[in-house]
Parts: sequence; structure tokens; C-alpha cells
Amino acid sequence: MIAKTMTEMVKNSSAIRAMFEEGKRLAQQYGAENVYDFSLGNPNVPAPKEVKEAIGEILGTEDSLMVHGYMSNSGYEDVREAVAASLNKRFQTNFSGKNILMTVGAAGGLNVILKTLLNPGDEVLTFAPYFGEYRAYTANFGGILREVKPDTETFQPNLAEFERMLSPKTKAVIVNTPNNPTGVVYSEQTILRMAEILRSKQKEFGTAIYLISDEPYRELVYDGVKVPWLTKYYENTIVGYSFSKSLSLPGERIGYLVIPDEAEDSELIINAANVANRILGYVNAPSLFQRVVAKCLDAKADVAYYDRNRTALYEGLKKAGFSCIKPEGAFYLFVKSPVEDESVFCDMAKKYNLLLVPGSSFACPGFVRLAYCVSYETIINSLPKFEELGRECGLI
Amino acid sequence: MIAKTMTEMVKNSSAIRAMFEEGKRLAQQYGAENVYDFSLGNPNVPAPKEVKEAIGEILGTEDSLMVHGYMSNSGYEDVREAVAASLNKRFQTNFSGKNILMTVGAAGGLNVILKTLLNPGDEVLTFAPYFGEYRAYTANFGGILREVKPDTETFQPNLAEFERMLSPKTKAVIVNTPNNPTGVVYSEQTILRMAEILRSKQKEFGTAIYLISDEPYRELVYDGVKVPWLTKYYENTIVGYSFSKSLSLPGERIGYLVIPDEAEDSELIINAANVANRILGYVNAPSLFQRVVAKCLDAKADVAYYDRNRTALYEGLKKAGFSCIKPEGAFYLFVKSPVEDESVFCDMAKKYNLLLVPGSSFACPGFVRLAYCVSYETIINSLPKFEELGRECGLI
Repeated sequence: MIAKTMTEMVKNSSAIRAMFEEGKRLAQQYGAENVYDFSLGNPNVPAPKEVKEAIGEILGTEDSLMVHGYMSNSGYEDVREAVAASLNKRFQTNFSGKNILMTVGAAGGLNVILKTLLNPGDEVLTFAPYFGEYRAYTANFGGILREVKPDTETFQPNLAEFERMLSPKTKAVIVNTPNNPTGVVYSEQTILRMAEILRSKQKEFGTAIYLISDEPYRELVYDGVKVPWLTKYYENTIVGYSFSKSLSLPGERIGYLVIPDEAEDSELIINAANVANRILGYVNAPSLFQRVVAKCLDAKADVAYYDRNRTALYEGLKKAGFSCIKPEGAFYLFVKSPVEDESVFCDMAKKYNLLLVPGSSFACPGFVRLAYCVSYETIINSLPKFEELGRECGLI
Repeated sequence: MIAKTMTEMVKNSSAIRAMFEEGKRLAQQYGAENVYDFSLGNPNVPAPKEVKEAIGEILGTEDSLMVHGYMSNSGYEDVREAVAASLNKRFQTNFSGKNILMTVGAAGGLNVILKTLLNPGDEVLTFAPYFGEYRAYTANFGGILREVKPDTETFQPNLAEFERMLSPKTKAVIVNTPNNPTGVVYSEQTILRMAEILRSKQKEFGTAIYLISDEPYRELVYDGVKVPWLTKYYENTIVGYSFSKSLSLPGERIGYLVIPDEAEDSELIINAANVANRILGYVNAPSLFQRVVAKCLDAKADVAYYDRNRTALYEGLKKAGFSCIKPEGAFYLFVKSPVEDESVFCDMAKKYNLLLVPGSSFACPGFVRLAYCVSYETIINSLPKFEELGRECGLI
């Protein structure tokens, strides 16, 4: 009796749950310390101390009715102003509070902006490999997600194919940089060329094509890499942000959208996104955590922790004969499967209690994703297992 | 360039915003203490002290990664068990954690269950007057909301018309008791008859018709009135709850769905609702507040405060010649407009700085809603104004 669209979704979801359950089963059988679960993108660095301090300060000094009460659907005005000021300082932009809409995480923000923009049948382009939820979010509003095939050498967007796939039906393009699942940061050169293509196609079609930049990993970068701030490269850019990773608050569902004045029909989009936030049932981003993040805009999770994991795992994998790009951001490594069907490889890995996610989940078969937001001990203890696995695959 | 469906939504929303802005303008012009804003359902009783204590206790004793981290999309298992146990104690039911899905408020819960159940073209019935957002929530999934005309004598559901309107296309019925905007509690007699009709129509059509009970006001009742717990009257009942009013936490977006084992296809619905919570972009209910409400299931906002407001306003309105049902729950009074077009009456009221909401917003023209979740002083100071208004309308 459930909705037809949900039947397929439940089936896919069962596969993910099955993997999750398998992890729990293995932990029970072998002991949690002997299972190396690289399948979940759940931060394992605690929230910075500023979060707890901010909560204490807010509850100690602000009125309960204000802290826990309704506000404008777009969020507290002072919080939105604080976010705008912080972005302006970091990226030399000119946002004000009205350009910021506080959202229930980045997932909430993406749904709000897609609800705002999409008519049924509109196309949304994204670059494989990509976070599989984009497909569901687009389908929520009758949109059609089309994927640009990956460049598996660099994992930079395949812009030649992108240019061919843009059409008068393209309403939006979703990019995710630093990228889940590859950890790659799209280069400034990539972004410049992408903007050039988009502008030229807008002109050719007489349409507006919105670039939606999903940026939960913005602060998780290594080796001093810079992540271009996209509104400066392309006018019709809308940014979706989440504090899930930067402040290790994934359960709190707090993020924001940036809708710049330069975007076509900016005012209309701002108004409609405010309404969409309400009618999609979010109503507003959780109130206490709006006030918390406004006090923690300069705080950061311990990126050095992830960096140490990254280096140890990358070096260990290379030593075991595997090949992958050294990620510059996020907390994922995307490893080439040494056997053609990567789900077979995942099953082989499971025999060593190594839990990996098949690249097919990200529209990129032939690869597997490892989330290294785990303890350093897990990394170190897993390395001999990867060596055994590499040996079994004939890599060393 | 925004979505067509959003254009109309933005227009409607502008009317609400205009009223909100008008309130701010009047407050600026005459001083906030001289403006009597009865337009907003925003609790003005602070959260009970247990909320702050619970936050302190949780942050002091629980691990940051657990408190702010991801959990199952349906919520923390211990929280769901605690909610189930509390319901079982209060209503002599037999729920377990798996019957509970923690949601982003009741609005999130309603969207989750409608996404789970509705195919495009499915009908959802509700009883006028009703909370206008039901229309948007139903439309989000291609459903069609059909409203049963009100019984303006008692504001109990009009069951004769309800029976006629049920059809093989009816997938769900939404009820809201204690009711926004009338404050009426649906009687046990009403519920028994409604269940009887639903069962008979299910049999006639060979379908399942789900009764969705939207219950944010369950604990806000007066004069010892009992609100029937609907899963005990009708098997295919799904309850949506919010802590917004009972714990004065409307900004925190925390509530739950109850999906009983007795409901047809219960297991399928539970699984699909879990997935819907994820793909609608909620992902999970805010994590800290899941843990907070589990510790505050017996705490309550100060209902006596609202009760005093209710009595003072009701008596004052009667004295000024107005007629309305004395509400038994929630914090609304639904007053008969003494002039045919109630928006004309709202404009007349505005001259006395009295801000009311036209009944048309709730599909019930000829009435106006007053939200008495304001300060007692506002009520007392508004009464002479209502007398002047009653006099102008020739009521006294």
C-alpha cells in the first residue's frame, strides 16, 4: 500500500542497511577492534569545544522563548548576518543576511533549492562519481538527474561531455567539491572553464542554468589546497553548506544556502526558497543550533586528525599495490578495484573484515570508496589486512 | 525562473508576510504594548526547566560523537524505546521502539508519511477548518486535498458529508485534535463513528484508508478534557506528534510518528518512512533534542498560563458581544465574524490594533482565529478594544 516511487527506494535502501547490519554482525563475531569499517561518512572527530561553550553561553544568557522559538522561516536575522559577514571576510564577497537561508543541513538546503527551481521534466546535471542522494532529491520534484561520465584519470569533471549534455532543459548543475567519494578538489582551471561553458550555453539557449555547489567538505582540505568560492566565477551560483563535517555536528542538521544578488531572479528565488523551507515541512533550521553555529563560525574540527589518517591510509594502500588518487579534501579515498566487478572486490575485502563501498553507489563502477573518518588505530591495524588483500589480488 | 508550483505559493505567502509586517509596523508606530497581536501560534510560555537541565546533563555525561552524530534515520534506538514506553504507560498501548520514527517536528512527520503513502492523484480528506499547510504537504507528493465542509455549530467533524466524500481514491484522512484553529477536541463519540465509517468504506472499496492524527496540541487541554488516543479506535491510524507546544520548543523541530503494528502493511510503511525521512532531506530528527525530549517525556509547559488566558479572553469576548465556542484545547479561539466578509472584520479590528487571522486561511470563511499564546497583560489590555469593536459592530 505504500507509494510506488517508494517501493524501489526501499529496495535500494535495503542494500545499504544490509551492509550496515553486516558490519554489526562482523563486529559481534570478531570484536569491534578487529573489524575495519570504512563504509560510513560519519565524522569521528568530536565537535570543537567552542560548540559546548556556545550552548552554555546561549542557555545562560538568552531568553528561552527566543532560543527555542519560531523565527522567520529563513532563520534568525542576526545569525544570517553573522554567516554573511563571515563569508565576506573569507571570500571578499558582499553578501548580507538576506542572501543567507538557514537550512536543515545541506540535504535540506538542496531540497529547498531544487523545490524552488524545478518544474517536472527539468534536467539536473551532475558529475560522476557523485553522492547518490542527488538522484532522490531531484526526483522529489519531478526533475531528471543526468550524470556526466567520469574522467577516471583525474576525477576532475569531464567538461567536454558536460558541454555536449547541456540542453535547453538543463535547469541546474550540481557540483560537490571537495568531492564525495573521490576527495578531489575541483581546480580553479576546471571552474573557470565550467563557468565559460555555462555562460555560453545560457546565451545559446536563452535560459538560466543554476550551478548548485554542495559544500559540506569545504573546510576539510589538506596540503594548503584552496577550494575556489564559486559565486565569484559564475553569477548563477547557489551554495549549499552544512556544519556536519566542519563542526562534527551531522546529527544536528544545520547548514545554509547562499543565494547571491547576482543570480538571475535572485529576489524571487530568495522568497520562494523561504516558502519552500516552510512547505517542505522543515519550517526552519533547528533554532538552538542556528545560534550555536553563529558563535562558532571560526571554529574547526581537528583537520590534522583526518590528515594523519589520509596519509597513513594512502601510503599503506600504495604499499599493498592499490592505486588511487591522493585526495586533497573530504575524508574519502577512491580506490581502483583490481578486479573488474568492484562488488566482487568488496566481497573479497570483507573476508579480511575490511568494509568498503562499491563505486556503483556513486555511478562509478570499477572503484571502491573508503571513508577514513575512523580512528587512527583502525587505519594502522587495517594496513596488514590490505596487504593480504593486495597479495590475494596479485598486486604485490 | 522559479518553479510554477512555487509562484502561487509565494503569492499566498506574501499575504501572510504582509500581515506580519503590518504587525511590526503597528508596533513601531504605537508601541508594542499597544498592539494586540493574536495572529501567531508561537508559544509564549518558556520551555520547562527540565529542558535546560537535560541539555546540561547530556553535554556533561555523553560523548560528543554520540550526541551530535548520525544515528539510524529513524532516530536513536533508546530514544524511540523511551517514547514508546511513555505512550504505553499513558495509553495502555503496546508500542516498541520500532513503531516510533523521530521526525523534524510534526510538519516533518506529516511530509514523511504522505511521501510514504501517496501516489499522484490519491486523495487526502480533511475537516474544515484546518491548518492550511496540509494543502501544501499533500501537493508535495501529487496528492489532492479534499476538505469536508465544517459543522459551524459544534466544529466537530461533519461525518455525514465525510461518509459521502470517501472514495476508492481516498488514501488518507488527516485529523487535528485539539484543533487549530477552533480549539475543539474531537469527542470519543465522533471518533467511534468516524472509525465505523472508515472500516465500512475500507470493506466496500477493498482499500486501506490511513487516518493521520496530527497532535501537536495533545497536552494543551483544559477542564480535565480527555483527548482520545486514536490508534485504539481505528487500526490504520498513524500519529504525528510534535514537542513544539508541550515543551515550548517550536524552533527546535522535534517530534515523532507512531506507526502501529496493527496498521495494514505496517512493516513496509515503517521501512519506507525511514527511507522517506532520509530522501526528503531531513536525514534524521535533530540529535541533541532527540536525547533531550527522551528525558522530558513527563515535563510540561505551563498549561495553567494558557488556561487563564483562555478564560479571560473568552469571557471578555462574550461581554463585548462576540460569539464563539469555548475551546477545550490548543491556544486558539475561533470567533464568528459579525460582518459577512471576515476580512472586512479583520480590517475593522486592525483600527483598534487588534490583529486577527481570517477564517478563510483555514477554509472556513465567516470566522476569525485568535491565538491566545500571548502575555496575560496583552489579553487584559485588549479587552476594552474588543468592547469598542463590538460596539462598532452593533453587538452591544
